[in-house]
Amino acid sequence: MSVKHLPTSLLAWQEIFHGARCSAVDVTASYLRRIEELNTSLNAYLTVCADRARQAASSIDFMREHHPAGLGPLAGAPVSIKDLIDTNFAPTTYGSRVYLDKRPSENAVVVERLERAHAIILGKTHLHEFAYGITNESEHFGPARNPVDVSRMTGGSSGGSAASVRSNMALASVGTDTGGSIRIPASLTGIVGFKPSHGLVPTAGVYPLAPSLDHVGPLTLTVTDAALLVDIMADLHGNQSLVERINRWPVPSSPIRVGVPKQLIERFATTEVANAFQTVLSALERANYVQVVKSIDFDEDDVATHQFAIMSGEAAAVHANQLKSMFDLYSVDVRERLQHAQQGTTTQAYMRGIAFQKVFRSLVDDWLRDADVLMLPTTPVAAPLLGTVTITVSQGDEHDLRSLMTRFTNPWNLSGVPAISLPAGAIDGLPFGLQLVGRYGHDAELLWRAKHVETLLASM
Amino acid sequence: MSVKHLPTSLLAWQEIFHGARCSAVDVTASYLRRIEELNTSLNAYLTVCADRARQAASSIDFMREHHPAGLGPLAGAPVSIKDLIDTNFAPTTYGSRVYLDKRPSENAVVVERLERAHAIILGKTHLHEFAYGITNESEHFGPARNPVDVSRMTGGSSGGSAASVRSNMALASVGTDTGGSIRIPASLTGIVGFKPSHGLVPTAGVYPLAPSLDHVGPLTLTVTDAALLVDIMADLHGNQSLVERINRWPVPSSPIRVGVPKQLIERFATTEVANAFQTVLSALERANYVQVVKSIDFDEDDVATHQFAIMSGEAAAVHANQLKSMFDLYSVDVRERLQHAQQGTTTQAYMRGIAFQKVFRSLVDDWLRDADVLMLPTTPVAAPLLGTVTITVSQGDEHDLRSLMTRFTNPWNLSGVPAISLPAGAIDGLPFGLQLVGRYGHDAELLWRAKHVETLLASM
Repeated sequence: MSVKHLPTSLLAWQEIFHGARCSAVDVTASYLRRIEELNTSLNAYLTVCADRARQAASSIDFMREHHPAGLGPLAGAPVSIKDLIDTNFAPTTYGSRVYLDKRPSENAVVVERLERAHAIILGKTHLHEFAYGITNESEHFGPARNPVDVSRMTGGSSGGSAASVRSNMALASVGTDTGGSIRIPASLTGIVGFKPSHGLVPTAGVYPLAPSLDHVGPLTLTVTDAALLVDIMADLHGNQSLVERINRWPVPSSPIRVGVPKQLIERFATTEVANAFQTVLSALERANYVQVVKSIDFDEDDVATHQFAIMSGEAAAVHANQLKSMFDLYSVDVRERLQHAQQGTTTQAYMRGIAFQKVFRSLVDDWLRDADVLMLPTTPVAAPLLGTVTITVSQGDEHDLRSLMTRFTNPWNLSGVPAISLPAGAIDGLPFGLQLVGRYGHDAELLWRAKHVETLLASM
Repeated sequence: MSVKHLPTSLLAWQEIFHGARCSAVDVTASYLRRIEELNTSLNAYLTVCADRARQAASSIDFMREHHPAGLGPLAGAPVSIKDLIDTNFAPTTYGSRVYLDKRPSENAVVVERLERAHAIILGKTHLHEFAYGITNESEHFGPARNPVDVSRMTGGSSGGSAASVRSNMALASVGTDTGGSIRIPASLTGIVGFKPSHGLVPTAGVYPLAPSLDHVGPLTLTVTDAALLVDIMADLHGNQSLVERINRWPVPSSPIRVGVPKQLIERFATTEVANAFQTVLSALERANYVQVVKSIDFDEDDVATHQFAIMSGEAAAVHANQLKSMFDLYSVDVRERLQHAQQGTTTQAYMRGIAFQKVFRSLVDDWLRDADVLMLPTTPVAAPLLGTVTITVSQGDEHDLRSLMTRFTNPWNLSGVPAISLPAGAIDGLPFGLQLVGRYGHDAELLWRAKHVETLLASM
């Protein structure tokens, strides 16, 4: 039996599977067929685990028939995993020639938890080498391509994860985010990407980029799916469960109080993105869903400088020995970035960065006392053509694509607060991503509000 | 293939199963055979779910072969469940003729969690009607019998659970404890019984006796097994896991500081129990494992009176309507106890009980600041012959068996602190149970110390 319509969310799949309207074997076969058809052109997967996925699926179907009580919450759900995350059943390259033969002995904690929940892991997805970049134009593996327009970037570094979900080659994916690596590709491909509060999802078994800023999180088709994946990956249950809470809490009874970083947007957004953001915000205001209560202004260059010092200092330390011994195996762009980081980041600059991080965290806490969320575009520009190097923004300045692209996302890595990107319409046919930022540790509140914004956006 | 030796603990079973030295189907068959051989004489199970258990086992074996990563931590472990706890796959009588036809629509939370962990549920065990008594001499189902000596009581109310574990008709069991109902039968049959801190294990789906005093907990062969079952039932993971912590923490480096309620023991223990306790305590002291730092004295009659007021007040409220309409279906002893409770417990007495509970909790907290644990016998008397009504204690007084039997356990229901009974030698061939009581919410610390006492007792 083949599947006529692929499920539209993890939640929909739970209903379909438990209603016995489709088996795990059938849905897995359908996704594997999609991968066979599309992966050559999109390059979303670096490794596909077809046989293992089929076996897991048949085992889960057997259990559904003979012992349904033993099934986990993701039973039969086909997911993909960024290839920065260790799997003991498949090669894990970290996107680099340095690790072409790497076969980890242990699964990352999040992989263990997904398998315990009976998710079907279809394969490992494309990334910018060592997650240190946002274009996913890999020297070795070739570029990941945006399913919306294959001549354009997915964004990165979790670009393969985003492409796999957007093109229905997986129902959900797990990525990582150190400066925007989940939210940027989610925005550029038109799906949901969520960076939880720093520390909520364990990073054990994930190759580090900059531990003070690294996050593991989901790329999904809906906000509730993102909550569900974090519940599994962070092992949240009962009163702690994000899904339970966002489903239990009623529709917000008053408009969401919003802070907007106007100055940041004015300085770095392209004209099209600035307009798209204003259009969405005005529509939400007209519907009385949100109320802009304040403009959040901060010294963007200070934030960028200190974020850069922490990221560079930690990345340089992680790669120090290996960069020396394996120099030729690194891609040119990542190699240069690491060399620059090693030479350019003094201990003093790093320490100043860590000190600034504390100050910035309290500043963000302050903003989020009389605002419920901050809202801004996820990226300053919609999906660029592959090969793009610079971008001209609304104020006329020309920026290097890479440093421009993380301007709207990396402040929330520095502060560690949860941030989510929602698809919110299109710019000339390319997805526009709206970013919501919440209080540290209040991931449920952010997702709850995001869910209601998602509902309204869907009706617009 | 048949199983030559049944596993000696849940932990041993994990090793056997994951080492593929035995299948879940085979171990289930072995336990079902034991049940067939022994249950007629012991009356530990009211319902056996043989077909369902075999199916679950074959499903778990299939998964071990095809998708081992999907297996839960109790995969294939054969367990029994007290028939006070709802199961949607088997009748749930609460030990009463009132509910002979009851088939709950939902599983209790703990049952759901055990099945998610892939435990095999073999059946539902014998209890004192509505858990309101400790003799398990059921008018309707007949008495549960002690595997150590079938002419003697198991104790109760979780007597069937204790008998099933002691006789190897289950590897572990789930019981409930409102005044001692887990610890008393564990003590009388010679196994481990643990009442966790009040509130740690959810009681949803368990027929209430007195909610302010009700606890769900494990009956097992070892302390570590008890920790493992609570991890599953309370959904504790990672840093919260009891097993993780008691295995990680080193052997205590100084003697355990012990408080002993001397006056309570002197007043209510039989001569044999008082001597057995002194023998064990002296041996632990000589081995420098424990140091008795204080005598804990309190007004036993005050505690008994207020515990009785809360238990009676709440039980009367729970049964009020049903007792009227189903009067003839209740057993004589439970009916009389409930009538007495309805007539004798004024609201004022109940309120005073609740107020006293708060005071007593702080008192116990104070004791447990300069003592690590309290130690006392679990029961004032070893397993009595079936039919016993009164007991004469060391001081010469004759006591009603039922009110005597809970004297050493019910203070810890009133205070809500964790308490565990360990098998600690014998009195004329009958098991003697040693009780350890710990700080509220510090279940891991108590189990860690209990594990080391267990190790020493095993070597004595």
